[in-house]
Amino acid sequence: LSPVFSMYGRYTQELGVYAKEEAARLRDGGGLRRVTSVRSRSAELLEYEKDPCAKCHVCTSRCQKFLISRVGEDWIFLILLGLVMALVSWVMDYAIAFCQQAQKWMYGGLDSNMLLQYLAWVTYPVVLITFSAGFTQILSPQAVGSGIPEMKTILRGVVLKEYLTFKTFVAKVIGLTCALGSGMPLGKEGPFVHVASLCAALLSKFLAALFGGLYKNELRNTEMLSAACAVGVGCCFAAPIGGVLFSIEVTSTFFAVRNYWRGFFAATFSAFIFRVLAVWNQDEETITALFKTRFRLDFPFDLQELPAFAILGIACGFGGALFVYLNRLIVECMRKQKTINKFLLRKRLVYPAMVTLIISTLTFPPGFGQFMAGQLTQHESLVALLDNRTWCRQGVAEEFDYISHSHAWKHPQVNVFITLILFIVMKFWMSAVATTMPVPCGAFMPVFLIGAAFGRLVGETMAIMFPDGIHADGSVYPIVPGGYAVVGAAALSGAVTHTVSTAVIVFELTGQISHILPVMIAVILANAVAQSLQPSLYDSIIRIKKLPYLPELGMGHHEKYNIRVEDIMVRDVRYITLSSSYREVQEVLMTGQLKTLALVESTDSMILLGSIERSQLQSLLSLQLGPTRRLDHLRRHAQDNGTHTHTLGAHTHLTSLDTMDSPPSPPCTHTHSYTSNSSNTSARHGVRFLVSVAEVILNPLPQIAEWEEQQLDEPVDFNNCKIDPAPFQLVERTSLHKTHTIFSLLGLDHAYVTSTGRLVGVVSLRELRKAIEGSVTVTGVKVRPPLASFRDSGNTTSVSEVTELHKLWNRHRGLSLPREPTPPDMEDQLDLVFLCE
Amino acid sequence: LSPVFSMYGRYTQELGVYAKEEAARLRDGGGLRRVTSVRSRSAELLEYEKDPCAKCHVCTSRCQKFLISRVGEDWIFLILLGLVMALVSWVMDYAIAFCQQAQKWMYGGLDSNMLLQYLAWVTYPVVLITFSAGFTQILSPQAVGSGIPEMKTILRGVVLKEYLTFKTFVAKVIGLTCALGSGMPLGKEGPFVHVASLCAALLSKFLAALFGGLYKNELRNTEMLSAACAVGVGCCFAAPIGGVLFSIEVTSTFFAVRNYWRGFFAATFSAFIFRVLAVWNQDEETITALFKTRFRLDFPFDLQELPAFAILGIACGFGGALFVYLNRLIVECMRKQKTINKFLLRKRLVYPAMVTLIISTLTFPPGFGQFMAGQLTQHESLVALLDNRTWCRQGVAEEFDYISHSHAWKHPQVNVFITLILFIVMKFWMSAVATTMPVPCGAFMPVFLIGAAFGRLVGETMAIMFPDGIHADGSVYPIVPGGYAVVGAAALSGAVTHTVSTAVIVFELTGQISHILPVMIAVILANAVAQSLQPSLYDSIIRIKKLPYLPELGMGHHEKYNIRVEDIMVRDVRYITLSSSYREVQEVLMTGQLKTLALVESTDSMILLGSIERSQLQSLLSLQLGPTRRLDHLRRHAQDNGTHTHTLGAHTHLTSLDTMDSPPSPPCTHTHSYTSNSSNTSARHGVRFLVSVAEVILNPLPQIAEWEEQQLDEPVDFNNCKIDPAPFQLVERTSLHKTHTIFSLLGLDHAYVTSTGRLVGVVSLRELRKAIEGSVTVTGVKVRPPLASFRDSGNTTSVSEVTELHKLWNRHRGLSLPREPTPPDMEDQLDLVFLCE
Repeated sequence: LSPVFSMYGRYTQELGVYAKEEAARLRDGGGLRRVTSVRSRSAELLEYEKDPCAKCHVCTSRCQKFLISRVGEDWIFLILLGLVMALVSWVMDYAIAFCQQAQKWMYGGLDSNMLLQYLAWVTYPVVLITFSAGFTQILSPQAVGSGIPEMKTILRGVVLKEYLTFKTFVAKVIGLTCALGSGMPLGKEGPFVHVASLCAALLSKFLAALFGGLYKNELRNTEMLSAACAVGVGCCFAAPIGGVLFSIEVTSTFFAVRNYWRGFFAATFSAFIFRVLAVWNQDEETITALFKTRFRLDFPFDLQELPAFAILGIACGFGGALFVYLNRLIVECMRKQKTINKFLLRKRLVYPAMVTLIISTLTFPPGFGQFMAGQLTQHESLVALLDNRTWCRQGVAEEFDYISHSHAWKHPQVNVFITLILFIVMKFWMSAVATTMPVPCGAFMPVFLIGAAFGRLVGETMAIMFPDGIHADGSVYPIVPGGYAVVGAAALSGAVTHTVSTAVIVFELTGQISHILPVMIAVILANAVAQSLQPSLYDSIIRIKKLPYLPELGMGHHEKYNIRVEDIMVRDVRYITLSSSYREVQEVLMTGQLKTLALVESTDSMILLGSIERSQLQSLLSLQLGPTRRLDHLRRHAQDNGTHTHTLGAHTHLTSLDTMDSPPSPPCTHTHSYTSNSSNTSARHGVRFLVSVAEVILNPLPQIAEWEEQQLDEPVDFNNCKIDPAPFQLVERTSLHKTHTIFSLLGLDHAYVTSTGRLVGVVSLRELRKAIEGSVTVTGVKVRPPLASFRDSGNTTSVSEVTELHKLWNRHRGLSLPREPTPPDMEDQLDLVFLCE
Repeated sequence: LSPVFSMYGRYTQELGVYAKEEAARLRDGGGLRRVTSVRSRSAELLEYEKDPCAKCHVCTSRCQKFLISRVGEDWIFLILLGLVMALVSWVMDYAIAFCQQAQKWMYGGLDSNMLLQYLAWVTYPVVLITFSAGFTQILSPQAVGSGIPEMKTILRGVVLKEYLTFKTFVAKVIGLTCALGSGMPLGKEGPFVHVASLCAALLSKFLAALFGGLYKNELRNTEMLSAACAVGVGCCFAAPIGGVLFSIEVTSTFFAVRNYWRGFFAATFSAFIFRVLAVWNQDEETITALFKTRFRLDFPFDLQELPAFAILGIACGFGGALFVYLNRLIVECMRKQKTINKFLLRKRLVYPAMVTLIISTLTFPPGFGQFMAGQLTQHESLVALLDNRTWCRQGVAEEFDYISHSHAWKHPQVNVFITLILFIVMKFWMSAVATTMPVPCGAFMPVFLIGAAFGRLVGETMAIMFPDGIHADGSVYPIVPGGYAVVGAAALSGAVTHTVSTAVIVFELTGQISHILPVMIAVILANAVAQSLQPSLYDSIIRIKKLPYLPELGMGHHEKYNIRVEDIMVRDVRYITLSSSYREVQEVLMTGQLKTLALVESTDSMILLGSIERSQLQSLLSLQLGPTRRLDHLRRHAQDNGTHTHTLGAHTHLTSLDTMDSPPSPPCTHTHSYTSNSSNTSARHGVRFLVSVAEVILNPLPQIAEWEEQQLDEPVDFNNCKIDPAPFQLVERTSLHKTHTIFSLLGLDHAYVTSTGRLVGVVSLRELRKAIEGSVTVTGVKVRPPLASFRDSGNTTSVSEVTELHKLWNRHRGLSLPREPTPPDMEDQLDLVFLCE
């Protein structure tokens, strides 16, 4: 076999095997009808690398017809999405509550024997978490973790296909239910963003299969994904507004205001259904907030309490940064320790089981758990913490237990403050450790809970210090520690995620907005502190997982102002010319990696005419060398040789190929002879035709080889090829900053660098990322300066770079800042995803 | 004079006049010190068209030093802005309350005589409104109206300088106070966005004058402006979150998430100070919401009430669209009626006075006003409407008057329903008319009020229909009509402004979030209806005022898919080449309009090298022909001629110019002779020098003329000229959609169209706007289709236009869609602003 065949060899072999199987089946029954399916199947095989979006030009006209009914379809899609997600959320909550109840029953039923009780308490979560980890590992490892970092990357424009499959959906939903049912300090919110996105992607595919056309538009799908993120948060907390804002803050860099609607509508609908289900299930009388508080309305807090709230916010900022640091430290420690790492890689389920064992042992209620309200689930703890009574003033017991949950916080020997402090400290590291387990899990809810506990601690302290409140004149307004809990929850979760919309989420969660000012102040201060110390949890995970996300530009690294595109671009661009032969196209396809290839006028002029998608070139090539033309050629060849041909209807039977000599090497080189029987049934015709097709494709006879060589030497006919006439261009002297802004804004994957129309290089996300990281990374993770948002402003949009002309004249002088090649450890597996895709 | 002088003639004459005046003053006193001021003044004159931002390259290095302390300065700026705006808002509220109280006193004190009472009631607002209109007209006509449309345009990147001056600030603040103090149905919110932006712009200028460097960065100022918009809404309603979201929705197309912070921080701080001032002033005990409601928390509404809320939302959608239509109709009617128009243009104060007279007559409490709660201010009406009692069930009077405001709604003879309906109908058209008056005013608050009244009406109806509430099982929960008022207010204001963030604003205004679901549902439905019928009020005003804003692309006009850049671009591009002479530069400067000029390699190749700012070229030209070089030349000329020169210190005296013959034509062609007296005092030296400089510049002597001709023929030296090496480029086949997206995203003013590196045209905002409007405008105002946001999605981001190559080959074929020239009435005065600027 000549190397020319290496590419098509794969196809022909596959097709050959398939054709034989099909022929065997047809011989039994079947009929001519099936023959066409072979052709469509072969077309599929040839196009198997094609992007579904590449077909878009086919359906453009159809799209335009559909556009009128577009609005309606959008509504329907969003309603469906909201409905499905609300159901998923509600069912999952139900299942989780059931799991947790089962554990309590088991634990409660065995109260005669402490050891049995302990075993029941510990075994249950270990089994659930191990199952969750194992199930996820087997079905879809992409379902592990939060999912927000991945969604951030996907919405940036990088295709991570395996993150949006049905398998991942199943793994995520079931894994998450088990993980949360175990009672570990894990959250539902992050994974829910991922689940909603999965749901949107699958719904799109489903509707595309049903209705076609419109739902195939990939750009539209991206917009739906961003709405789905809002739905995820919205139906998880029944917080539509907070959900929309949180998803914007967490996933976007530049937000198109027109998408705002979509998110609002879908999230509202989803939250509505989610809460209506609770009403129908008789859990609630009407639609109310998830963690409804009952603070007094007339005087929620005194002006003089604001410093306490501010201090709470600053402390939460430090706490949030510490949490992110701790979380990353644990992951990095385990990675560095090679023995641990090897062991864990071999026995993947040992780590989650071990972690669960330790955590559940520590929370065992008759043991250490009695000092940290270990018996409560997250939901119960939060309800208790947001309570509007003052715990420290209730004395020892009297009315403390009218809600059973509050009882857990009161220990006969131990002060409520000690309980709170222990709860905070233990939950802090437990949450940081638990979120590193390879199960679907988020960190938002645990952090939220810790924040609420910390706020409650501060509130109770304030209540002790000012028993009659601070307000001086007139009536007595005692301190409301529950208000501090709300503020603390918002501040800590805001600090960990680097968002301010947690403020809105708490209002929607608690159903009260009276503490708006303290919450806003604390959240802003917590963000200011946390952002100056650590990246957000999601950015940290992006770095840990080495996802292909474009980092933001750092401040204070002014050398980057001098980096220009010419310093980072790849000069060895793969291109094809107008006069290229098919052979050249084939070679380019086999060597390059980028999704699109440049089309230049000629190798001399190098003037960029446009870009062609890889899949387009593949189909050009397959058209030229495909089975149809092969058969055509063979038929003509056979006709020329005077062999008898048999035509029946539209089908051309190629027979008597045994007149040709057998080829020298390939594995299955039997040549069969068929003599034509004009009285055959159509089924038999089908079988024969099929087998002969398989033979022709399978056996690269010398004539065929020769014919292929000829075909490859022909110049490419671009007439049926779709070309993008306006690929994105930069000039060599475009600064890194401008490039970064344009890539972020337009969500580019790559851009061509031209010099007075001539193609001189190409810059992809990969080069850009390396250039940015090369000068920012200090200790493995980019450290963001105080309120990063404030700092980026001046730099990122500096569009008008003025430079002196004499520099323009001697353009190809020595580069001002020759860049070192980036270290090979950057060549992560994931890097390839967005380059090959 | 040769035509060459026409450009510099202006300068020289101005300078000559100035120099003579200065010389006269110097002769009296003054001294040598003043001489330098002449030079700086002349430099000013020569640079008078320069953009302040063009100097940016000078301060880049300084900027970089400042960048470290950048974050701190941002904080300080935002705190200052928040503080100032809170103070302005509070003082204005105080003044308005005082005005309204004064009217009530006057009205109340005259209750003996109905006629006097009527005169007092009517005269007071007429005087205030007339003063407001007159004051604004004289000081700054730009202060008229809402200001949000202008801010939308400015944030889009179009410079409307006169909208951000100190004069406008004063006019807006004082005009607004008077307008609102008159008690007309006008709002504070829109103008406050403008006031906050003015405040930010002035603060920037002030800080730039104090500290320089950083505060001159114009890009940063734009970001600060977008934060200022949030502050404006935030401190007007004490609604920081709603303020941020509303300002984003109203002013942005693509929002940079990093700006989110800035807005949040500034708006929170501002709202905080605004409410703290109320506490300090003993108006409130602590910080609470502006219109605090006291609805019950445990069961705010029943699930079965949701259809009523939905219907309310849909009705508000129709109402909102009607309001926008009515408002525009009034403006257009008056414009079309030429006699009215002429009359109103001559007597500008008649219209507002007339409108005020009619409105205040109708609201006169003893007259028709008694049936529509005419005696209440907007604030009082809103407090009454959001009341948590049910009006219809209170019977005739009993406890109805424990808040005095509610009394106004109850008429002895007339049902409360009639009062509400009259209130809604009358206020509806009154607000629509009042907002067309040429005073600073917004429409948000009046619309909000009407919405609340409509909601109250629906709520009261529901309360009548279901006296014991709808809830079936267990306890009785009566309907809360106040909740309907909240929902109606949010829905109607949302419908008029096309925003959903009004939902958040009502939560913050009322301090209760219990009705979140009905509010969200109603707002979304109202938006869906309103958007399908009319543009938003702000877009409508943009069209009425013909502001240079880039409209959004419409749906269902598929012909626009076929419009490409080549169809709309200006082919006659002004450019300069590397070998251009100064004369060519001068000619290009005198003919072109765009802010920047293209630099191409040569007229033959037309390869685009970059773009140069107009101001850069002007300074190049002035360097070449400026006074320094003129004097230099003359001095050398004089030296060569052997005339005696006189050197004293650094000053070169040019005297005895009388040896030259006088020029033929110019108006002031007297040549004076000065003989040198070496014993003169320095003051006299100064005078003489000055006069001689003036002479030299003033009199284009033949030698000078000849010299100038020579100078103009020299090739331009670009060495000291800042060139943008990467101006934005499009290709001819870029679609209108892509162009629109790129212009919107990057805030471009113009883009060059290149064909394989060669400059073939230029597209500016103007062409783009005309192309879009050309195919969308039907009845003067673009009609937005249902939920416009939904529709734009698929189209706007269609980046990958694939086309067939054979079209690429015969590129210069006949254009597929030749566009007609746009009608001359589009050539509005304002159009020029963004082209010349």
